[in-house]
Amino acid sequence: MPTFKLTLEYDGREFAGWQDQLERERTVQGELLRALREIASGPVRLMGAGRTDAGVHAEGQVASAAFETRLDGETLRRALNAKLPLDIAVLAADLRHDAFDARRDALAKRYRYALWNGVLPSPLRAPRAWQVREPLEPALLRAGAERLLGSHDFASFRGAGSAVKTNLRTLHRIDVTGEAGGEIQLAFEGDGFLRHMVRNLVGSLVEVGAGRRAPGWLDEVLEARDRAVAGRTAPACGLVLEWVRYPDDAEVAGKSAQPAGIFVDAP
Amino acid sequence: MPTFKLTLEYDGREFAGWQDQLERERTVQGELLRALREIASGPVRLMGAGRTDAGVHAEGQVASAAFETRLDGETLRRALNAKLPLDIAVLAADLRHDAFDARRDALAKRYRYALWNGVLPSPLRAPRAWQVREPLEPALLRAGAERLLGSHDFASFRGAGSAVKTNLRTLHRIDVTGEAGGEIQLAFEGDGFLRHMVRNLVGSLVEVGAGRRAPGWLDEVLEARDRAVAGRTAPACGLVLEWVRYPDDAEVAGKSAQPAGIFVDAP
Repeated sequence: MPTFKLTLEYDGREFAGWQDQLERERTVQGELLRALREIASGPVRLMGAGRTDAGVHAEGQVASAAFETRLDGETLRRALNAKLPLDIAVLAADLRHDAFDARRDALAKRYRYALWNGVLPSPLRAPRAWQVREPLEPALLRAGAERLLGSHDFASFRGAGSAVKTNLRTLHRIDVTGEAGGEIQLAFEGDGFLRHMVRNLVGSLVEVGAGRRAPGWLDEVLEARDRAVAGRTAPACGLVLEWVRYPDDAEVAGKSAQPAGIFVDAP
Repeated sequence: MPTFKLTLEYDGREFAGWQDQLERERTVQGELLRALREIASGPVRLMGAGRTDAGVHAEGQVASAAFETRLDGETLRRALNAKLPLDIAVLAADLRHDAFDARRDALAKRYRYALWNGVLPSPLRAPRAWQVREPLEPALLRAGAERLLGSHDFASFRGAGSAVKTNLRTLHRIDVTGEAGGEIQLAFEGDGFLRHMVRNLVGSLVEVGAGRRAPGWLDEVLEARDRAVAGRTAPACGLVLEWVRYPDDAEVAGKSAQPAGIFVDAP
């Protein structure tokens, strides 16, 4: 059965996330399935690489869609965009081998989290960033990030209600950009992420960046394997799934110019 | 009566503009008046520097508010923000001389317009930019912008339904930044703007940037003094009022490092 790799951008505000177990709310997967069913002959199998939460945005979510069709990728992309609502767009639709599975085959993902560190409220930034009023020192955020790099059991940063075989994940890279008192971005590249993991990492890094905890506290949090010892969960609005990397993706791999495993103090 | 200069940021999406003659819809002025009346002793006189249209955003709108109060500016700012909805914020409240009028006293304003020149739809950019799919050449946009600089009768760029004494306005500066196929920003500084003037200028500059019209066509449009000969009105979502300058504003004047009257090919 033809299997397509769909690259998706969406504004997460009006979605109850990628999927909803009860299928009662508006989800990205639900809207995409509805559009695919208007195009496909017969059943559709759809799998998303990252199960983004309610309110989380995506610049490069990837889904695999398997269904009978004679359409080529570009025609499928245009047909889907004509049927999708304005807050989801298919940026690319590429035919892959029949066994392609967007979740299982993903090698790495990158999430970016936006903080607004100003003391004044900002209505134009609020829909896409978490406001933290205490000054956050980028050097401290970077010192904290270094403690998190590499392979760890991330149980302390895993949200409740997810069943996974292992909490072992590897963070290849964390970029901290921006200035205290302004817009600060934290970006995380890794082989996989547990439920709420990025938002929980951000909540704990903010404790370090604000100077309330030393960077070494994060070693203790990792070691405890207990969600209760980590910081709060940062709100969903600040989170964007930037991209998902696959074995045959030359162009996406090229987006990260730095080798894996190296912490980069980005400009 | 104490008169404050209020500097405002707002997300224009959920507003029917700065004001609504019939006072039936949700407006920025209406929300601000409601909050001021909870604080003021007696009547409130409120005047906005720019009557932004429905959907237009502001990073630095200015309003003058005159009313009896014993509050200092900083206390007023905090009190207002506690009473305002999340899509409006008061960034500063400064006591001015009693005759201060935000509209009459304004020396200059700067508006920025965002274009998304990609061929793919972009749900994350759509709420804040107008998508134009034909490639726009920045050099052509700049050549067009040079025709518009200086003092002109801008009747061809004035929206219907506004009564003004003169259509003579002066554009001090136009900045064009960005690249064909990506995000392009057009920023306009001038002594004043007619109704829909920025959006009509953008609609006509896009004709030039796309190569459908030569830059010299804009001279003809200016000369015609006829709205029908200019380009279409660009949608409101891409427009942001950046700032308003007053005679005693050292800090705002400093935002524009270039002297007036010089067209700058911004980085």
